[in-house]
Amino acid sequence: MRFAARVEVRLRPGIADPESATIERALPALGFDDVGKLATGRSFRFEIEAESEARARERAEALATRLLANPVMEDAAVSVSPVESP
Amino acid sequence: MRFAARVEVRLRPGIADPESATIERALPALGFDDVGKLATGRSFRFEIEAESEARARERAEALATRLLANPVMEDAAVSVSPVESP
Repeated sequence: MRFAARVEVRLRPGIADPESATIERALPALGFDDVGKLATGRSFRFEIEAESEARARERAEALATRLLANPVMEDAAVSVSPVESP
Repeated sequence: MRFAARVEVRLRPGIADPESATIERALPALGFDDVGKLATGRSFRFEIEAESEARARERAEALATRLLANPVMEDAAVSVSPVESP
């Protein structure tokens, strides 16, 4: 069975995030003074071939923590769902 | 009211994505030959002060399409939900 996985990699709380701070500082001058607490991250979507959803999740988490995120500075949030067959 | 917004910016279909292609090509050698169709993107989370969820969504979409995504090459998917009051 094929599963669709989505991984969102974000900096851990407390890690300096100058990119987000810069965007946030620019927003009021650009007309978005109603926006705050901005945080940036990276997203990955992929498909996994696995015999069960639990196994697909395990593989997606292994990929996310071993290759996509830097565990010293980053957290990875993983979600997995079955791909509808065509 | 405060709303939490999440924006995922991804390359439009058909736009060359060498970063994803490179990751995908490396995966089998790293033990992930069960993974395919990888696509990368950028994610943004922020909070918006607005009088209604519809208005918050409108503002989040304006921010996403005007500032966070490059509409020539990228699509932005926006989701908005109320922030639970503390």
